[in-house]
Amino acid sequence: MSLLHPIAQASFAIIDREIGAHPFDAPSYAILRRIIHSTADFEFKNLLEISPGAIAQITQALRSGVPIITDVAMVSVGIQTMASRTFGNPIITALDDGSHTAPGQTRSEAGMIRAWQEWPYGLFVIGNAPTALLALCDRLQQTRVPPAGVIGVPVGFVNVVESKAALAQLPVPQIRIAGRKGGSPVAAAIVNALLELASSEEPV
Amino acid sequence: MSLLHPIAQASFAIIDREIGAHPFDAPSYAILRRIIHSTADFEFKNLLEISPGAIAQITQALRSGVPIITDVAMVSVGIQTMASRTFGNPIITALDDGSHTAPGQTRSEAGMIRAWQEWPYGLFVIGNAPTALLALCDRLQQTRVPPAGVIGVPVGFVNVVESKAALAQLPVPQIRIAGRKGGSPVAAAIVNALLELASSEEPV
Repeated sequence: MSLLHPIAQASFAIIDREIGAHPFDAPSYAILRRIIHSTADFEFKNLLEISPGAIAQITQALRSGVPIITDVAMVSVGIQTMASRTFGNPIITALDDGSHTAPGQTRSEAGMIRAWQEWPYGLFVIGNAPTALLALCDRLQQTRVPPAGVIGVPVGFVNVVESKAALAQLPVPQIRIAGRKGGSPVAAAIVNALLELASSEEPV
Repeated sequence: MSLLHPIAQASFAIIDREIGAHPFDAPSYAILRRIIHSTADFEFKNLLEISPGAIAQITQALRSGVPIITDVAMVSVGIQTMASRTFGNPIITALDDGSHTAPGQTRSEAGMIRAWQEWPYGLFVIGNAPTALLALCDRLQQTRVPPAGVIGVPVGFVNVVESKAALAQLPVPQIRIAGRKGGSPVAAAIVNALLELASSEEPV
């Protein structure tokens, strides 16, 4: 079955023609292609990093209905259509309203810690806030409960590269964007591609 | 007053150091800087296009509470915090649920036409769907009611460049991103920068 709109199919054909040489296998390329589709930025070809086995592990978790925890509403709204069309995974935006945020803490950080306490086995998707990713990595270092996976693609100039380096040190299934780039559409593209892969008949 | 988080302020300082030579005046640069902040992509320095007088006209409309019509929910959620902190502009996501979409029409196109019929004087913000921008331009060509402005920054590979070219032909206040790039965070960054400019005490 194809979940794709004809315009998206035409866009994918253009990307296929222009992408040139790349090292990705078919499921990894499906993720890359969705990222480029949502950004029109071919530089992501050199930035996408997927840990060994991550796609198989995360797609399996998605099929079993794992909750998806995001750092910002922009990511949540970007994945809700595909989630509802596939496995109906619950989507939780882990942004605290301020009522549980300690001094010196961001609302993203406080919200992510609370979400991890409630759903430690979830799929965590960080598209915006490096403080949320740093706080999550800190907790994951102290636990033996493995999450379904971490999509670590915050964007920006402060703590972003550091947060991705912290994630790379952890033995959890993960997908990252190297450097400063990333963002909500990149995070949504990765999750939507994983949901498509999980619902396709091809083994990944 | 500053609406900025300290992390955003630190990010802006890094962008100021790295941006190099550019042709933008202060309010235009405020918009560019928010775009780069949300994408970590300095190429937008060469892509941002602002029609003469657009910033002054749009900020004036924002101060008077003009409704903001977006093409997708990702843009709406990306601007709602800043809108609620400043002028409380109503935010409308013009995506049809399918019930008014004709054969061959996208839900974005149908939704944008209906929104324009209801709020022809609004500020239109297209961050994703070129079909919405093309449909809007078609209607604007046929009317003498000027909208408050159009932020035309769809992203992608099919009809995107064409939709921006159609907008450029129209005598309406407008902000565009040349080429294929754009997207929801770019659209949200532009609107948030305009809201900040509108709420600052400096004349723009």
